[in-house]
Amino acid sequence: MAEYMDVHRGMRGITAEQLDEAHRADLAVEREEGVHFKQAWADPDSGVVYCLSEAPSAEAVQRVHERAGHKADEIHPVPLTV
Amino acid sequence: MAEYMDVHRGMRGITAEQLDEAHRADLAVEREEGVHFKQAWADPDSGVVYCLSEAPSAEAVQRVHERAGHKADEIHPVPLTV
Repeated sequence: MAEYMDVHRGMRGITAEQLDEAHRADLAVEREEGVHFKQAWADPDSGVVYCLSEAPSAEAVQRVHERAGHKADEIHPVPLTV
Repeated sequence: MAEYMDVHRGMRGITAEQLDEAHRADLAVEREEGVHFKQAWADPDSGVVYCLSEAPSAEAVQRVHERAGHKADEIHPVPLTV
């Protein structure tokens, strides 16, 4: 398992409720892919959302996001953290 | 105070030691700008680094990074988190 940071763009105007709903949609299906979404941060003005997860691969992260209805634009493994 | 996520690109090959050193350089000057860098994540393969901070403004975040010798490429307030 490794940590991944993924980025969604084009989410301009996202509300706290929509972020919460999107996160819960990920949590509802993540286990089947061996993924866990730990945290997410959103900027409604620029429409950027960052998601931090633990997962077996970037593909598994994307599969969860796709099944939850919000494909990521970028996914990076982040093996280094401080 | 608000949370900010900033992104550095072009850090391909960054090591754990270099990430730690860069983070400590931020911590050494952050107080003068009222900023606190909470966490950072790096992908040595793509050269992307994400930093999460608490700060009074995006400009204050950038001033700390500039003084520490590593200007950010993007800085976003992230008022929503889950």
